[in-house]
Amino acid sequence: MRWNGWGDPERAKPLPRAVHALLPLLLGRVRKPEASVELESVNLAPIALSAEDLGALREAVGEASVDTSQAARIYHAGGRSTPDLLRRRAQNQAAPDAVVRPGSHDEVRACLALAAAHGIAVIPFGGGSSVVGALDPERGAHRAVIALDLRRLTGLLRFDPLSGEAVLAAGTTGPDAEAALAAHGFELGHYPQSFRYATIGGFAAARSSGQNSAGYGRFDTMVTGIRVATPTGDLELGRSPGSAAGPDLIRVFLGSEGIFGVITEVTLRVHPVPTERVFEAWTFPSFAAGSEGLRQVAQAGSGPTVIRLSDEAETAVSLAQLGKIGKILAKGASAVTVYEGAGANASTEIAERRARTSALLRAAGGVSAGEGDAADWMQSRFDGPYLRDALLDAGVFCETLETASTWANLPKLRDAVEAALKDGFARIGSKSYIMCHISHIYPTGASLYFTVLASVREDPLAAWAPIKAGVNDAILEASGTISHHHAVGRDHAPWLREEVGETGIRILRAIKRELDPAAIMNPGAVIGADAGAAPSTTSRTEEPLQ
Amino acid sequence: MRWNGWGDPERAKPLPRAVHALLPLLLGRVRKPEASVELESVNLAPIALSAEDLGALREAVGEASVDTSQAARIYHAGGRSTPDLLRRRAQNQAAPDAVVRPGSHDEVRACLALAAAHGIAVIPFGGGSSVVGALDPERGAHRAVIALDLRRLTGLLRFDPLSGEAVLAAGTTGPDAEAALAAHGFELGHYPQSFRYATIGGFAAARSSGQNSAGYGRFDTMVTGIRVATPTGDLELGRSPGSAAGPDLIRVFLGSEGIFGVITEVTLRVHPVPTERVFEAWTFPSFAAGSEGLRQVAQAGSGPTVIRLSDEAETAVSLAQLGKIGKILAKGASAVTVYEGAGANASTEIAERRARTSALLRAAGGVSAGEGDAADWMQSRFDGPYLRDALLDAGVFCETLETASTWANLPKLRDAVEAALKDGFARIGSKSYIMCHISHIYPTGASLYFTVLASVREDPLAAWAPIKAGVNDAILEASGTISHHHAVGRDHAPWLREEVGETGIRILRAIKRELDPAAIMNPGAVIGADAGAAPSTTSRTEEPLQ
Repeated sequence: MRWNGWGDPERAKPLPRAVHALLPLLLGRVRKPEASVELESVNLAPIALSAEDLGALREAVGEASVDTSQAARIYHAGGRSTPDLLRRRAQNQAAPDAVVRPGSHDEVRACLALAAAHGIAVIPFGGGSSVVGALDPERGAHRAVIALDLRRLTGLLRFDPLSGEAVLAAGTTGPDAEAALAAHGFELGHYPQSFRYATIGGFAAARSSGQNSAGYGRFDTMVTGIRVATPTGDLELGRSPGSAAGPDLIRVFLGSEGIFGVITEVTLRVHPVPTERVFEAWTFPSFAAGSEGLRQVAQAGSGPTVIRLSDEAETAVSLAQLGKIGKILAKGASAVTVYEGAGANASTEIAERRARTSALLRAAGGVSAGEGDAADWMQSRFDGPYLRDALLDAGVFCETLETASTWANLPKLRDAVEAALKDGFARIGSKSYIMCHISHIYPTGASLYFTVLASVREDPLAAWAPIKAGVNDAILEASGTISHHHAVGRDHAPWLREEVGETGIRILRAIKRELDPAAIMNPGAVIGADAGAAPSTTSRTEEPLQ
Repeated sequence: MRWNGWGDPERAKPLPRAVHALLPLLLGRVRKPEASVELESVNLAPIALSAEDLGALREAVGEASVDTSQAARIYHAGGRSTPDLLRRRAQNQAAPDAVVRPGSHDEVRACLALAAAHGIAVIPFGGGSSVVGALDPERGAHRAVIALDLRRLTGLLRFDPLSGEAVLAAGTTGPDAEAALAAHGFELGHYPQSFRYATIGGFAAARSSGQNSAGYGRFDTMVTGIRVATPTGDLELGRSPGSAAGPDLIRVFLGSEGIFGVITEVTLRVHPVPTERVFEAWTFPSFAAGSEGLRQVAQAGSGPTVIRLSDEAETAVSLAQLGKIGKILAKGASAVTVYEGAGANASTEIAERRARTSALLRAAGGVSAGEGDAADWMQSRFDGPYLRDALLDAGVFCETLETASTWANLPKLRDAVEAALKDGFARIGSKSYIMCHISHIYPTGASLYFTVLASVREDPLAAWAPIKAGVNDAILEASGTISHHHAVGRDHAPWLREEVGETGIRILRAIKRELDPAAIMNPGAVIGADAGAAPSTTSRTEEPLQ
């Protein structure tokens, strides 16, 4: 992963010519930013760990697994939100004091005990792809902070082909997990945009949802068990696919983003590797018509593996990307469906699911475009973040955000978010272009995923903060959830309080006090700065709600 | 509901002649029990509430909604487990000091605040059908205990047909919920054996699962939102069908059985009322073969609404009940499948699902018996508890219990439970007859539901306690969950600690301390007696594990 951008530098692409041509039309004049700083010349604060701290950490995980190099510290300085990437362009940057790489569950536990005893904050770190500030090197009330890099906890630990259950180490990346399962003929089928870098533990801790969620469910529905190390005790949860043995404590840790402890192993439902795949692209007269089609599909359970619908604005730009610039003024909303299946009857079953789904989409005004752009989408589906890098390099502000609600409330929620974005940029004299898609459907509702492009003349980091705050306010005001699959991190923490209420926050704080009494775990994430703890020096999330 | 048996006395039936004839063959000589005590002659302890307590409660909910009559106290003296029913036959019985019936969420909140201030324990009470001791009139460290009867919180509060979401008051019974939804053309589809009496809030608090779970999911998967009153604050949770806004706090309350507060409203996913229904019965050469068929069905998602498989012992007795006593020595395991659908294409879709399912069952050795006994099963599916009453009256001990595990572990778990039951009764010189069925399937595993009949010469209440403890030990030893859908109550509390570990119990206790610092809510349920609280005088769950 690039230290100041997305993914593999080899895969980075310049801005497509069509998009380049489109930008002035959409956003007016764009100011090219100054060149980025080089890694070697970034100024970091001195390492705040004592020789004794470092000695103890080295004893816990081995000499080679405690890294205080400038490169390691900067690689672990945050996630991959647009603000993260903008901060990576600055001369002075915040970073953890060291990167510690435990090699086993027991070493994780030892690190947490040690950190609690020494008063060192711990940021659990998987693939580094958080886009909500979950990886900020926040030390809370403590004198130092380490990134606990979990990538050495890797691999398929146990596999039960009869039950279709796999136990994966938390630091296993998406591709490594799929490769290990594929050797047994199985697949997890969790493909979020971060797939190539993010880890199994990160998917669990952030309640991820992948592009095949219509077929295989969001990540939390795949989880049947977890192993967790906390500063004060371990947990091993998950004995059966259904249980009434008290509240489901697995769900306390899914979405906890490291504030209670570290997920070290995850037990997951898996399925046979699909042997057949059918693509079908669709065009609807409008996003509203398409959305009605998706609702029918979700409520009938008609069976696509992937289904996603772009609004008119996203459809136009996607067509431009594919070189079909002439169609930019065409009205309409495009959709992608994919059907996967395995086994002897895969063709028949896919045909049945496709027929049921297609009938519902046609009834909603959809027109099939054959295989069309669906296969193109599949091939480039992890590449969005590279495009963002190219846009940022061209001086275009680009960020994504997402929410979800019931079908009935979806139009109101979409309008509210778009208005907050458009008005926010307009207030600083910037033109913006806002796109939206639905990519996760449920019988009772769906997600809304927004991408915003804007020409920002002033400091984009300072400009974006109040606009993002306004969007978050608008989401909650319009009864949406503060995040459908990006999670809370530090960026959404003040709004989580409004979503779950004071009593909800009290529950989370009570669990944290019990498991992490020294408040070393990911300070400031999810629930904000812990009550009673000294105010943090680096927090940027504790501003009161406006 | 009868005070000392199941359900409506009008529906009670004598023991079927075939079963009566079978009993001596299965169990040897059975001793007829003494006649049951009359309600009026039961001795209850004096009411421990002061005039001031009662006055405050009457002010909170109205004069007519505070009931201290002998009948009301006895009706709320417990649930409907076999030990509950055996205790109802005794001269001296424990009962709550009063029954309080709040009429709104705000009145619930007022009752909890008042109870905390006055030091009165509160047992939330819905349909009264708990079979795990969740409704025992346990006062914990407090001087008095009230049953908080929630049946006045009833009805469909809000309905969103577009999203397929309904908000139901917690005290609404199964039939009332379905009637209210049917008026809009919708159905919840949750049909546990307790359906006729149990309430929406009870289904949520106990993580219920119904007979149509293959089609519509277990109850906790239907829940998209809840409203809760706790002694120290309210919660309203659930803004969207999918979210990554921190841990899913709804799941903290599902399965909490009233130890944190009272669920007053539940938002639920509903679906159109089925307009077509197809039954098909099956026979397998063995339970093992049938189980393999069910695994294939679950993993393929082939789509039955109901699927259940009886083992050889249950098959034999069921055939006997249907008058086919001659078949009792025939080997084999019978199964029931039901397919439901709604809408214009219901027939086609049911036919497709049935064809897919039937192919898998046939491949596993299943032979279709046509509509056979499946429709009979459907018609009598809520009547099991009446049969238990008749057996108890005939002096036959009869109880049910359930667990779940992965498909791979299911045979080991079944053997362990059967051995613990058989050995337990053998140790006291009793013959037992043990039946088992699978009625809830998941891709990664399934439930096991056991019914045991036994001839018990000594006091059956005393005889059963160590046998049940031995079964619980065996379940955990064999990696099962302590309950698949009956929940924890007080009866399973000591074993929950083993299932979720000390750290898991610490999490539950921390939440309880935060929300219910006076420890008034359902003392002793789920997590056992609260640490620090004075030992209870009536608890029967705090014996150490053997």
